[in-house]
Amino acid sequence: MSVSIAVVGATGAVGQAMRDVLEERDFPVGRIRFLASERSAGMEMSFRGEVHAIEELTEEAFEGVQIALFSIPKAMSRKFAPIAVAAGAVVVDNSNAFRMDPEVPLVVPEVNADAAQGHNGIIANPNCSTTQMLVALKPIHDEGVIRRVVVTTFQAVSGTGRDAMDELRDLSDAVLSSREARPLVYPHLIAFNCLPEIPNKAPWEPNGYTEEEMKMHNETRKIMAADIQVAATCVRVPVFIGHSEAVTVETQRKVTPERARELLLNAPGIKVIDDREARTYPMPVDCAGSNDTFVGRIREDYTVANGLNMWVVSDNLRKGAATNAVQIAELLI
Amino acid sequence: MSVSIAVVGATGAVGQAMRDVLEERDFPVGRIRFLASERSAGMEMSFRGEVHAIEELTEEAFEGVQIALFSIPKAMSRKFAPIAVAAGAVVVDNSNAFRMDPEVPLVVPEVNADAAQGHNGIIANPNCSTTQMLVALKPIHDEGVIRRVVVTTFQAVSGTGRDAMDELRDLSDAVLSSREARPLVYPHLIAFNCLPEIPNKAPWEPNGYTEEEMKMHNETRKIMAADIQVAATCVRVPVFIGHSEAVTVETQRKVTPERARELLLNAPGIKVIDDREARTYPMPVDCAGSNDTFVGRIREDYTVANGLNMWVVSDNLRKGAATNAVQIAELLI
Repeated sequence: MSVSIAVVGATGAVGQAMRDVLEERDFPVGRIRFLASERSAGMEMSFRGEVHAIEELTEEAFEGVQIALFSIPKAMSRKFAPIAVAAGAVVVDNSNAFRMDPEVPLVVPEVNADAAQGHNGIIANPNCSTTQMLVALKPIHDEGVIRRVVVTTFQAVSGTGRDAMDELRDLSDAVLSSREARPLVYPHLIAFNCLPEIPNKAPWEPNGYTEEEMKMHNETRKIMAADIQVAATCVRVPVFIGHSEAVTVETQRKVTPERARELLLNAPGIKVIDDREARTYPMPVDCAGSNDTFVGRIREDYTVANGLNMWVVSDNLRKGAATNAVQIAELLI
Repeated sequence: MSVSIAVVGATGAVGQAMRDVLEERDFPVGRIRFLASERSAGMEMSFRGEVHAIEELTEEAFEGVQIALFSIPKAMSRKFAPIAVAAGAVVVDNSNAFRMDPEVPLVVPEVNADAAQGHNGIIANPNCSTTQMLVALKPIHDEGVIRRVVVTTFQAVSGTGRDAMDELRDLSDAVLSSREARPLVYPHLIAFNCLPEIPNKAPWEPNGYTEEEMKMHNETRKIMAADIQVAATCVRVPVFIGHSEAVTVETQRKVTPERARELLLNAPGIKVIDDREARTYPMPVDCAGSNDTFVGRIREDYTVANGLNMWVVSDNLRKGAATNAVQIAELLI
């Protein structure tokens, strides 16, 4: 059996990662179409040794497509996902358009693979920060029942897109050369700075949290357990690829650091890097390009009865987006 | 009245900031001596328009000195602080040598100024991450009694020293130019990366926390209240100057975000930057060079009964080190 696939938003940072992940895995790709905006149409992308023209995303583009991996802006997803579904495709959507829709499963395969089966044509891919956190927390939750999470993120600019990666490169160079560094993508300088505001446009919820922070709360409740509480602080840092998270959890039953390490070592999609003598721990530059979620700095939170601290890093373009989407597609075949 | 001052470790990043802060404030400096290692002796430093030769730090260097501001490695502080005290000076020490010594006051003037009076010749300056956090937390603690703090830090390389600032500059340039980027100061690449390990040498405590993380717990208990619990994750980020902290507190009595904002607006040493419409919040690049502690992103932590979240940024060389030391000296005169 082979599947007819469309990568929608193919020229973006996540779209290209989707292509790479499909190439690398044993995914039974039959026909593949790369769709993007008019601007990119006519350009080319290679896939498993063959060159493909990038086609314009139009209402007719989904004919014969069985699975469409979407990584386009929310408004575009809202428009084109129903069109793709009407044409017979199942859409795995990476935007925020459908995530909290009760009719749409929101899936991290390591956490709630079963939910994917209940779809009506659309399955949502969670926010990058949520996905890697839940991969790491699922084994702890199964053992001890997590009640509360306090998480602080260190998020890479590739989460904003390719233009943000260019901005980090250009403005870092400008600062190092004492040239004027004027931000265009971000509201403030991203080079050698930290911006506690994600996403980039009108991010505030009425309670003072950003949209990204509330996503971590709401999506966690939809994916893992409806009564978990998540207090997040999401921060953009001058890193190209790889989100890092300092995660503190409180569980109903005690999970010792030793037990947590054992659980994490045996959990799918996780690599533990936590050798104090060797001074190793997960870092974004090491995790970029990998499909795994890396966990380290595992230690007891001695300030509460059942507390655990850890440091979770993953490639936000891969497990945070493309890899998780392809894994969802794998659940469908 | 004027005071004879020595700046010990004058050529370091903190030493130079001490000089700057003494210059800027109305501190009644009489004679001033700049002491440093043999390597720097003979170089010059200016102070209020006059050029001073840098003198070698020797056992005889403290004659006539009334207040000595130390910013030298711990082992050097251990050796020279008692010598300075024997020569009649009061030492304000920025190292970790004496901080937890029960005979030595550990002082943040906005928090426990009175403690300075109980000194026996040495007063310790707290760790940079602790100082700025406590300036921000003191007004909240006075109102609601803080029981537990979960804090994640984003720490600038200047906390390691001048060579680390050079390393961030050099390795950032190497990465941008696709040249080999080999770390010398840090165990791993600091450019466009995050390192969850502070300080830089043998940092692990038996409980899996780093020395820096346990300093935040232990120093907070010595300075503000003996029964507070602090769970810290301390992370080095590619920022030159300015530590940022995501701070979550649980209080005994409810402190609303509105009340917290009001308290912080009226507290000494604090500037509130928290205008959502204008998209302003504290950022390291804006706070570098200031003596204040900047607080923003003030919001309720809805995951516990009496929770509060905030974002605290300050110049680690200034309020985190030099400014706090000079303020302690001001308490002595």
